[in-house]
Amino acid sequence: MSGGGVVALCGGIGGAKLALGLSLALPETALSVVVNTGDDFEHLGLKICPDLDTVLYTLASLSNPDTGWGRRDETWTFMAALESLGGETWFQLGDGDLALHVERTRRLGLGEPLSAIMAEVAKRLGVATRILPMSNDPVQTVVETDQGTLAFQDYFVARKCAPKVQAIGFQGAATAAAQTDALKALASPETEAIVICPSNPYLSVDPMLALPGLRAALAAAPAPVIAVTPIIGGVAVKGPAAKIMTELGLEVSPVTVAQHYHGLIDGFILDAKDKALANQINTPTLAVNTFISTQAEKRLLAETVLSFARSLRNAPGRVAS
Amino acid sequence: MSGGGVVALCGGIGGAKLALGLSLALPETALSVVVNTGDDFEHLGLKICPDLDTVLYTLASLSNPDTGWGRRDETWTFMAALESLGGETWFQLGDGDLALHVERTRRLGLGEPLSAIMAEVAKRLGVATRILPMSNDPVQTVVETDQGTLAFQDYFVARKCAPKVQAIGFQGAATAAAQTDALKALASPETEAIVICPSNPYLSVDPMLALPGLRAALAAAPAPVIAVTPIIGGVAVKGPAAKIMTELGLEVSPVTVAQHYHGLIDGFILDAKDKALANQINTPTLAVNTFISTQAEKRLLAETVLSFARSLRNAPGRVAS
Repeated sequence: MSGGGVVALCGGIGGAKLALGLSLALPETALSVVVNTGDDFEHLGLKICPDLDTVLYTLASLSNPDTGWGRRDETWTFMAALESLGGETWFQLGDGDLALHVERTRRLGLGEPLSAIMAEVAKRLGVATRILPMSNDPVQTVVETDQGTLAFQDYFVARKCAPKVQAIGFQGAATAAAQTDALKALASPETEAIVICPSNPYLSVDPMLALPGLRAALAAAPAPVIAVTPIIGGVAVKGPAAKIMTELGLEVSPVTVAQHYHGLIDGFILDAKDKALANQINTPTLAVNTFISTQAEKRLLAETVLSFARSLRNAPGRVAS
Repeated sequence: MSGGGVVALCGGIGGAKLALGLSLALPETALSVVVNTGDDFEHLGLKICPDLDTVLYTLASLSNPDTGWGRRDETWTFMAALESLGGETWFQLGDGDLALHVERTRRLGLGEPLSAIMAEVAKRLGVATRILPMSNDPVQTVVETDQGTLAFQDYFVARKCAPKVQAIGFQGAATAAAQTDALKALASPETEAIVICPSNPYLSVDPMLALPGLRAALAAAPAPVIAVTPIIGGVAVKGPAAKIMTELGLEVSPVTVAQHYHGLIDGFILDAKDKALANQINTPTLAVNTFISTQAEKRLLAETVLSFARSLRNAPGRVAS
């Protein structure tokens, strides 16, 4: 990577780990992370953006190492007081975390776009990486289940992913505008790699692909697009991806994930455990350790992704930038 | 007091102390406290009601003994995080306190009246006393000063009462509806005493008196109306009352306070220290210790107020209820 940028597409906890690795592996301002906002919702009158905030806190070294979401060194006085007042407590909001929701809601109310607010807040927290909401327009992931059509947080948090998923939809996606800066970054000849982070393909990446122009921009991107599997050895590293795949009648395998991104990716990374499956994937595939826990592991996987991208750029049949 | 109710008119910290004393001295459900809402404002997108909350926390034994406002055992993680995000921090909001503002704002947004929200919250916190906002309509105390016309919290908190007060106004008061339950309680033959708490007459009591019908209801109340001085020995027990009186060209004396309530009160209580001034007051006046700090002192003053009221009810020339 020499001066060029890298774009990551990312959901929450799982994806944010690789985003952090990329930020550690790259020059300070080289990384742009396009983040799913389909999980965003209004709660207690506040606009909550779970994936954006997980990415922000992770990149700012403020994330909670125990939960993956929320802030480290958090206090919970607000929730305890809210409970005593009879308020809704099914969605946990830490005291420090709350500051972001209150400040964001206030500024959205003044008409500021979400992207501008997140950029300002990221700057305040010392994050040089560009954190780009996939859209400034509301998109709501809805989950059709055996218990009816559920708002995402109702399915994910309140019902702990217990209902059986039949289909997943993205309300508002058809008319939402994809983030201009995200589309630009995907199309830019300066961009040297595009990484689909190991996020849930159906809940975290598909909302982005549902935005007008974003899928096409990804498919037409001059930079190589590499996806990293969120499935290792038949289970999801984090979250309900495996359960959802089963319920949707899909095989819980990195091969399914690679097929899901067919036409979009130029390379795929699966876990070393699943090395034997590489020959079932119809795109250049690398098998490495993808279970990343320490900072060093995150950075190492990021470096592997970046050098894989470099090799794909330089491969015959591709025009090097 | 046998079965009858007592109504207190009250601002924040100073008045809340006597309201607590009254709640301790009376049967559980006998007390109604009509509370100033002229200090209410919107901050960070949240509706903050400083006097209502001080009264609520005081009666719920949740108040902060060090500050008088806010909650005891409070944490401040929200403010610290807000500061790191570049948010406004001139108005301190504790993490537990924030729950009340968020919950109230949410419910106001759903169209619930402020009085219903406060009643529900008081019940949740085990407060049997009726806490009545003076109005469900917005009234904003504005302070005309040598630094211009200032919103109350700008004057009071941000500028720490430093500007010189020239006049005080109550925006919206002329068209706001006084709380129906407050008007009813003032007019009720069941009410045995009405107490104007030792709150700032100009900033905390005048907003109530500015509401259509409230002054008249107080003047016509069948129950004796007793005011307790907030001025002792030429200084205010709490807050800027003395400073404001000086700036308005008034003598800093309980006599001035009694004159301010002329036509409304049937009895006045000044501090034992100011006993010599009693003969300057043109209404029955009692001189007792009014500097109340402990629970016992608060209750004792309340009992004194109530027995004074009883004596006035039974006095010749008044029709006993």
